[in-house]
Amino acid sequence: MSPDSPIRERIREACAMVRQKTPLAQSFTNFVTMNLVANAQLAAGGSAAMSFLPDDIVDIDDISGASYINVGTLLPSYRETLEKIAQVFFERQSLWVLDPVAAGLGATRTAILRSFANYPPTIVRANASETIALCGIWGISLGPDSHGGMNRPAGVETVDDVDSAMPYAIELARYLRAHNSTHTAAVAVSGECDLITDGERSFRLPGGDAMMTKITGAGCSLGGVTASYLAVSDPLIAATAASLHYNRASEKAGAVAKGPGSFQAEFLDALWQTQPDEICASDIIESR
Amino acid sequence: MSPDSPIRERIREACAMVRQKTPLAQSFTNFVTMNLVANAQLAAGGSAAMSFLPDDIVDIDDISGASYINVGTLLPSYRETLEKIAQVFFERQSLWVLDPVAAGLGATRTAILRSFANYPPTIVRANASETIALCGIWGISLGPDSHGGMNRPAGVETVDDVDSAMPYAIELARYLRAHNSTHTAAVAVSGECDLITDGERSFRLPGGDAMMTKITGAGCSLGGVTASYLAVSDPLIAATAASLHYNRASEKAGAVAKGPGSFQAEFLDALWQTQPDEICASDIIESR
Amino acid sequence: MSPDSPIRERIREACAMVRQKTPLAQSFTNFVTMNLVANAQLAAGGSAAMSFLPDDIVDIDDISGASYINVGTLLPSYRETLEKIAQVFFERQSLWVLDPVAAGLGATRTAILRSFANYPPTIVRANASETIALCGIWGISLGPDSHGGMNRPAGVETVDDVDSAMPYAIELARYLRAHNSTHTAAVAVSGECDLITDGERSFRLPGGDAMMTKITGAGCSLGGVTASYLAVSDPLIAATAASLHYNRASEKAGAVAKGPGSFQAEFLDALWQTQPDEICASDIIESR
Repeated sequence: MSPDSPIRERIREACAMVRQKTPLAQSFTNFVTMNLVANAQLAAGGSAAMSFLPDDIVDIDDISGASYINVGTLLPSYRETLEKIAQVFFERQSLWVLDPVAAGLGATRTAILRSFANYPPTIVRANASETIALCGIWGISLGPDSHGGMNRPAGVETVDDVDSAMPYAIELARYLRAHNSTHTAAVAVSGECDLITDGERSFRLPGGDAMMTKITGAGCSLGGVTASYLAVSDPLIAATAASLHYNRASEKAGAVAKGPGSFQAEFLDALWQTQPDEICASDIIESR
Repeated sequence: MSPDSPIRERIREACAMVRQKTPLAQSFTNFVTMNLVANAQLAAGGSAAMSFLPDDIVDIDDISGASYINVGTLLPSYRETLEKIAQVFFERQSLWVLDPVAAGLGATRTAILRSFANYPPTIVRANASETIALCGIWGISLGPDSHGGMNRPAGVETVDDVDSAMPYAIELARYLRAHNSTHTAAVAVSGECDLITDGERSFRLPGGDAMMTKITGAGCSLGGVTASYLAVSDPLIAATAASLHYNRASEKAGAVAKGPGSFQAEFLDALWQTQPDEICASDIIESR
Repeated sequence: MSPDSPIRERIREACAMVRQKTPLAQSFTNFVTMNLVANAQLAAGGSAAMSFLPDDIVDIDDISGASYINVGTLLPSYRETLEKIAQVFFERQSLWVLDPVAAGLGATRTAILRSFANYPPTIVRANASETIALCGIWGISLGPDSHGGMNRPAGVETVDDVDSAMPYAIELARYLRAHNSTHTAAVAVSGECDLITDGERSFRLPGGDAMMTKITGAGCSLGGVTASYLAVSDPLIAATAASLHYNRASEKAGAVAKGPGSFQAEFLDALWQTQPDEICASDIIESR
């Protein structure tokens, strides 16, 4: 058995569990891509519910395996709402995934993200620039020698590459584990070669199709599907399995699509069709 | 002529009228699925407009044949807004369809749904659990012998089956007719075998494709299309014709789709292509 | 060289620039169609970001080539927000496109549109009825002899034809140029035969597929893509190139689609595939 075969077994089991249990993972997510988030969760085997009210979210948390918060499009009332929800999740030891979309842009977004520092999520899924920016907002530094990337993304697109975000991702994962109430955590940095880390073990996941950058919500919906996986497995496995599921599905869609319109339909079909065996057989490059 | 041939004639006429008149049916609906609601209304032959402001909704009501309210995703300001709109519809004798998404979850949603008790809609379209929960919120009971289903849905999914909701649906339809200002009403319960009732006559509509549960907004968009039909026909016919149109279209899509992504595109195509003759020739099982 | 060959060269260059620079054009747009707006911008070669907060929009404006505001679905808080944003754009000489969806309906929408009179956009993209209604709201008249169209659209659909809107569009373009802070402007009226004018030169653009009226957001997403083009070219060229790109892509989609579901996917594919040479070779009928 190869050194990482236990990881592969746990990934296979996570994939099978999502399909078998259709776990509910609720979302408080942005308006642009929420339809794709829900459809991707359904296509991956899970179940979806969206809300913007604290009372709803607490009620749905009772019946959800995990939750997902995405700060892409904010309304003024969210400033107070989102901090309250993170606090409730903390008190209940609820598992949740944060997508800090456009971290570093906008005073309201920065204030909301800062308010999560004391009630951090189980998993952060972000692009490289957002990962680095979130570390800045939470005061997580790499020591005096480090040189950061830019801490301001180009809108919702990254301007940093995944490698430059790696040390930040590792520190961020350690911070999450130390400060959230479940004391388990992972960080997933999406990019040309995805990076997953729990602060101790780190995996690079090569592959995926470039057309994913030409549909809106590829990253957001991966955040939602990561929450579906988190409902049935530990954070490192959840983040890894969800990203692998995405990469294999996007490659299948990319092989047949004629453009971004057919790509989105093919991608949802491929999420639905891709089997646990294919997902856990993916290339996984571990670095410690 | 079979005993139900008048019903079939009226269904055929309703289908033809939607295509001929492209009636406007406005929506105050949830953010997740509103795009599909609008596209389904257009594909079924109608016309769409969405708003979240009372002044807009009154203005658009002037030019709409019917309206649609869906409480899936709420914002704090809706508490007052939605009651006001229901009251305006009551005073104007406007026809409207309510989709009580996730009825039973969340204090805000419950308060909003309760506020509709005095200004109830023309049609309620819901899943089985939501139908039962709405009866609970409005104090509609089946007498001392009845045993209810669960009155709390599993997020947005039903935990009860259509048969257990049947007596509730009948009482609910009678309540709507007695308390709304048009004194006509129907209730449509979606599920494996749809149920439509006006409190006197009840129809079971078998068929439809299971992939409908793997795309978000199948039920919501049926609510919107029901409003399109309500703009041109009476509530019992509108609810029946819309559900039949959905079932036939979903079967066509299911026969060719490779997964939920292609299913959604095929379903909209099939809504567009399915003819009045096919719709009114569907199986309709009447129970009195 | 034909008289309009310089126009064609500038259109070709604009198309090439959008593909080469992937310009960011941010949007404050309606909830129904914002997903299609973002996907259409990406498919046309640009980049997308959406927000509803003044602080965000100012930050994103720093890195955007142009912005897009669409008043389709409003929330109460937008009344103050949108005027403030228009004022900021005015002070910064930011380029922006306005889509006055449903102009003439609703007191809140009318108040918001009126507040833009002192800080008008660079481009207005609208249907015929909205163009005429916006002139009414801003007090732009055609003199004592003119007879207007209706100034109230049928929901979001036009009740006037493009020809009847032509004199309004010309006056509106002149008003924009005189009152915005960049002193350049264009108006694009979408319809069976699109009309583009900067107040001096006017182009009619025949073609496009009728199925565009059977998907929600065709016009809204054209507004967003017009902003992508405005980020790399002057208003007259931006509005013309974006509309031509849309017409050629919709014709390709219409030739193969089976209904509105496949049409939307094919349309995004065709936006992606259509080349600058095809776009600038389109029929352009100039009237002065």
